[in-house]
Amino acid sequence: MLTSIEVQLVRRPDATAAVSDFDLVEAPVPSLKSGQVRVENRYLSVDPYMRARMNDRPSYCPPWPLNAPLDGDAVGIVTESREPTLPSGQWVLSDCGWRERYVAGRSDVRPLEPPPAGYGYSAYLGILGATGLTAYLGVMDVLAPRPGEVMLITTAAGAVGGTAGQMCRALGAHVIGSTSTPAKVAHVISRYGFDAAFDYRNEQPAQALARLAPDGIDGMFDNVGGTQLEAGIEAMRTGGRIAKCGAIGDYNSPHPAPGPPNMHHFFGKRLVMRGFLVSDHHDRIPEFQRKARDWLADGQLVADETVFSGIDSAVPAFLQLFAGHNIGKTVISLPVTGGF
Amino acid sequence: MLTSIEVQLVRRPDATAAVSDFDLVEAPVPSLKSGQVRVENRYLSVDPYMRARMNDRPSYCPPWPLNAPLDGDAVGIVTESREPTLPSGQWVLSDCGWRERYVAGRSDVRPLEPPPAGYGYSAYLGILGATGLTAYLGVMDVLAPRPGEVMLITTAAGAVGGTAGQMCRALGAHVIGSTSTPAKVAHVISRYGFDAAFDYRNEQPAQALARLAPDGIDGMFDNVGGTQLEAGIEAMRTGGRIAKCGAIGDYNSPHPAPGPPNMHHFFGKRLVMRGFLVSDHHDRIPEFQRKARDWLADGQLVADETVFSGIDSAVPAFLQLFAGHNIGKTVISLPVTGGF
Repeated sequence: MLTSIEVQLVRRPDATAAVSDFDLVEAPVPSLKSGQVRVENRYLSVDPYMRARMNDRPSYCPPWPLNAPLDGDAVGIVTESREPTLPSGQWVLSDCGWRERYVAGRSDVRPLEPPPAGYGYSAYLGILGATGLTAYLGVMDVLAPRPGEVMLITTAAGAVGGTAGQMCRALGAHVIGSTSTPAKVAHVISRYGFDAAFDYRNEQPAQALARLAPDGIDGMFDNVGGTQLEAGIEAMRTGGRIAKCGAIGDYNSPHPAPGPPNMHHFFGKRLVMRGFLVSDHHDRIPEFQRKARDWLADGQLVADETVFSGIDSAVPAFLQLFAGHNIGKTVISLPVTGGF
Repeated sequence: MLTSIEVQLVRRPDATAAVSDFDLVEAPVPSLKSGQVRVENRYLSVDPYMRARMNDRPSYCPPWPLNAPLDGDAVGIVTESREPTLPSGQWVLSDCGWRERYVAGRSDVRPLEPPPAGYGYSAYLGILGATGLTAYLGVMDVLAPRPGEVMLITTAAGAVGGTAGQMCRALGAHVIGSTSTPAKVAHVISRYGFDAAFDYRNEQPAQALARLAPDGIDGMFDNVGGTQLEAGIEAMRTGGRIAKCGAIGDYNSPHPAPGPPNMHHFFGKRLVMRGFLVSDHHDRIPEFQRKARDWLADGQLVADETVFSGIDSAVPAFLQLFAGHNIGKTVISLPVTGGF
């Protein structure tokens, strides 16, 4: 009988997640009923927000159950089909996550068009997927940069931050990145075209902004909180905007850090802070993908991937997201199997 | 020669302002040139934001100079005129503030229509003035309550909070007030028609909200920050709005308190926090005054004043704003003098 290795959560992490919180389990793959297809996953998405789903406390997405296959975005190929609209060979996106293969109905998967020149289907997990859409929504709906305005992008070398900064540049803004190593500072400037960047582990964000944006900033894409948010609020000019779509610094902590002490600037400077979740905005995918493909085609947008190979690399790949070493989108690549 | 007693700031307060930071000075009132009028002030506005103007540090409004007459909204009567459009007897609003009388040109004052039935011209400092407009902007532009939504109003017995809560009620919302004494709790319920209220000095805001809004809240008018903002964010339902137009708890403190530690809810719950300043929105005065007059006429809006008498009461009246004893708008009433 055909089986699939899947990643299960077996223990809820107290603080920082560890390898021992997970297990690899071999599960049977059922045979197809009418209207179903079998999909071989080729790429799995690994994202910081998944840490929040490992806690059993109220959050914006339901906690992952213990001892069950973990979900998350994945791209795969239909290798067996009893559903005429999804023939063998069709690439599909699902949220059936951290497993090698699965059986699904028509509504469980979304057929994918060929990716842009120079990119593989894993682009649908990153630059054309949820991370790209997250960046797009924050930039277009919250930051709305006007030409010449100064934008601060946190996690600038990450999949969301790097993309958001490039989109702000494409719209004519002056873009400053915050990231965590000298190598990433160099990367976001040379590869993503940021106007400037700093290493917040070696320079206080407030000092870096005084140096790089002496006249202040007009917007901030904040995935971090803490001293970076405080420095951003302090540097904001009148009418500044703050997009909040994550708080990676808090995900592993049972006791979140205090918020910024300078929130009185919200009325003095007429600031707006808006939080959003990409899962609310699936209706924006066509508009976003059209725009992203245009920017990719004319070179205003590039995307990096950090690729780990094999289902057994999923947990280590997830854990290293929080060490700050990765650049761009982290994906798991699964080998071609099953006669395809 | 005609003179005017005026209040001057003679020393910048370190933390809590004190009587010794001010002085009463008798200044000459010049004779009129063509195009000028002399105005006898009848009502002076006393507002918490003035504390921020006493510091010599960057803020949203310029610091008050030392040893010069303090400005602020004031309502008075033209008693001598060399300007045909401002005859003697005309009531006018100015920001020429804390003094008995002054000489002004046409563009320094705004002529006032008669106040609504049951109110005096001091209404133009409160319910029809900057405090009413502040409440209106926060309610209409930020909170935008839909019928049945739950709104939390801080400083509920104050001029801005009490008005904002009544406006939310007029729009069909369920309104909960936070205030600082049992008497004020009773007042905002019986006189302002709040659905519920609590005394944050005797009950933790988080516990009060769990009791009074067990299903959460949809908006918060936050003039305070601190634990009240934290509790409000915690209780917010998805899509909640926070209007910020002040932080009275911080005005006297050189070291602002830490911000709320639960700002990760901004993305999980898709919250929006928007700061605003009434001084940006003078163009909204006609719309606001029309609406406020309607609500006053049909009894959906009432306004209280705490009145102090005489120019020598201005400083004590200002200082007691921070003790939390006042209800409604605090004004200084000046006696009729000068043969009028």
